[in-house]
Amino acid sequence: MTTVPKGYSFAVAAAGFKRPDRNDIGLILSHGSAAAAGVFTKNRFQAAPVLVCKELLAERPVARALLVNSGQANACTGEEGLANCRATLELAARAAGISANEVLPTSTGVIGAQLKMDKWAAAAPQLGQSLGTATAMDVAKAMMTTDTFPKFSAKSVALPGGEVRVLGMCKGAGMISPNMATMLGFVLTDADVAPSVWQEILTYAADRSFNALTVDGDTSTNDTVLALANGASRVAAADAKSVKLLRECVLAVCQELSYRIVQDAEGGTKVAHITVAGAKSAAQAELAARAIGNSPLVKTALFGCDPNWGRIVAALGRSGAEFDPQAVVLTIGGVLVFEKGQPSPEDLDALLAPSMRHQDVEIALDLGAGRGSFTLLASDLTKRYIEINADYRT
Amino acid sequence: MTTVPKGYSFAVAAAGFKRPDRNDIGLILSHGSAAAAGVFTKNRFQAAPVLVCKELLAERPVARALLVNSGQANACTGEEGLANCRATLELAARAAGISANEVLPTSTGVIGAQLKMDKWAAAAPQLGQSLGTATAMDVAKAMMTTDTFPKFSAKSVALPGGEVRVLGMCKGAGMISPNMATMLGFVLTDADVAPSVWQEILTYAADRSFNALTVDGDTSTNDTVLALANGASRVAAADAKSVKLLRECVLAVCQELSYRIVQDAEGGTKVAHITVAGAKSAAQAELAARAIGNSPLVKTALFGCDPNWGRIVAALGRSGAEFDPQAVVLTIGGVLVFEKGQPSPEDLDALLAPSMRHQDVEIALDLGAGRGSFTLLASDLTKRYIEINADYRT
Repeated sequence: MTTVPKGYSFAVAAAGFKRPDRNDIGLILSHGSAAAAGVFTKNRFQAAPVLVCKELLAERPVARALLVNSGQANACTGEEGLANCRATLELAARAAGISANEVLPTSTGVIGAQLKMDKWAAAAPQLGQSLGTATAMDVAKAMMTTDTFPKFSAKSVALPGGEVRVLGMCKGAGMISPNMATMLGFVLTDADVAPSVWQEILTYAADRSFNALTVDGDTSTNDTVLALANGASRVAAADAKSVKLLRECVLAVCQELSYRIVQDAEGGTKVAHITVAGAKSAAQAELAARAIGNSPLVKTALFGCDPNWGRIVAALGRSGAEFDPQAVVLTIGGVLVFEKGQPSPEDLDALLAPSMRHQDVEIALDLGAGRGSFTLLASDLTKRYIEINADYRT
Repeated sequence: MTTVPKGYSFAVAAAGFKRPDRNDIGLILSHGSAAAAGVFTKNRFQAAPVLVCKELLAERPVARALLVNSGQANACTGEEGLANCRATLELAARAAGISANEVLPTSTGVIGAQLKMDKWAAAAPQLGQSLGTATAMDVAKAMMTTDTFPKFSAKSVALPGGEVRVLGMCKGAGMISPNMATMLGFVLTDADVAPSVWQEILTYAADRSFNALTVDGDTSTNDTVLALANGASRVAAADAKSVKLLRECVLAVCQELSYRIVQDAEGGTKVAHITVAGAKSAAQAELAARAIGNSPLVKTALFGCDPNWGRIVAALGRSGAEFDPQAVVLTIGGVLVFEKGQPSPEDLDALLAPSMRHQDVEIALDLGAGRGSFTLLASDLTKRYIEINADYRT
């Protein structure tokens, strides 16, 4: 049973941007005005829908609908791309019977091509017909590109005033190294929460979930997580205790989605949980964790189930984090591998073999330099990743 | 004809570190005392031979011999690793009839294992027998690991006082993103040059060659380039003009070796020449070029001969370099691809297809933000790279 928040309807349409007969437009409609929050890519090149979302949220942090299309990113498309993005808001608003400035747009797909507006115009009326018959899962499927499964998480939490529901969905399998957000994600709740608090909750959750994973170190131009809180439960999250409970529930939803992204990494077979502790600061711990999680040599060793820990240490050494090499302690799957500048005298290959065969591999480092820590989820690097990305457009 | 500098002899031996019957130890002996210079990895974990070389050069910037072994990196091996490294100097010095403190050591191979000292001791006498019969190319072959061909460059230059010769050799195909040096390289000349000038020449050349390439962004623990100048030509490089001529000759040798490393990148099929100009500083240009050259998505598109330029722009956007997206101009193989925030209206796929099929692909960006520039050589990312590195130790 999925606990879908009250007061939302869903719609999908098949425009044929990349393949015929596949839903590639999705719409989420809140039955009333909802507090709206967003976190966006820090890439200097920002896609048209990112720019439009930021503009709309700056004007008014409320919205009625979230719109997504897959197959075309509408990034690096200049003024024409912005005009096209605004035109899609008109088309979707007309289908849903609301105003264009109440719709927040998102797009994902190939960078650099203009939206196929004829296909958009032809498909938009389907959204109106679909509204109320489609499910949240249908929207999660419509936003997929190279994803092999839809990413979905739904939880409920009992606030002092009553139960509220939080639902999250996202897409993402490649060009994944979110910076303040990931490839498209939506979070919905029926809690009644002020827009400014809702934004704080989303930022808090995104920093600890989508911003703590990597597939290939490539931050997209379209990364966006949008969140609506429509209050349809008539349960308010206004007091500190309620806000905290809601925040932890949103975080749990976002972390589940984040795990699913790494699990579905393009060609991926592993999820490495890389924890760096004892760093001079959290930022230094993140620097170290990302150097390891993005190292092609560490990632290929993971793929090969090879406990080649020297590559982890070498990546740490070039990360820019400050520490004394003699103070570093490395464990893999709980097995002590390296300390005091040299390897454990045990037969490491034999001891580590079982951990390396699991889908989830725990890599823990203590730098012995302070109290900063960071945990990164990282995928491995496989032949299938190369196949997918060498031929993506063909 | 290779113009081997005067006054050097070469030796090799087969210790069987990784495979039997393959030369895996090399020695270069200068007939007289030579000015010695070195550049080393900036990785915080520095291999034992790197630490020993730095110590020896700090004591006295002259040497008689360069020693290399492949198959074992002697990195992350603690005090025992340092003691083993010093023991190999004794073994090699005895075979060559010189003192141990006249030998500069280098090692390359798997990180974390202690040197197999029994094999070292058994093989060292072979070096004495081989001295004078082996060639420089034999040493270049002995230092290979995953390299598919030896990397060798020899040039001569007419200084005002007469002709001198410069010979360079190196190894390197993976864990390649040198920082101040690359995986093992040796440069020899018979010019007569002061140690301090010789070090300046080597640093100048390494910054513009080995430090301007990337295979996988992974900086090794063992990166070392050592250079000897023995004066056997009796031609001095003391005046400014001679030093400049020698420096440019050393640079040409180092650049040829650098190109060979990228050409022989593990599994690589392409050499991308990524030039970023118009940056606020050379450092920002380098930041941008490295973000592009290390992007798995850019590298897989190169492998697929796919002119997917949106990935280049997206990598630039996340690089941290400062610029106005509207001011960026991108050309590939001389074809204008992107400017004023949008793609060229031409049929880019058709126009770029011929360039993408070449082994060498020219990617040029102008950020329109200043006068800083940097050119990086980068390999592509292929299925063969994954195969090599998923199974490296097995």
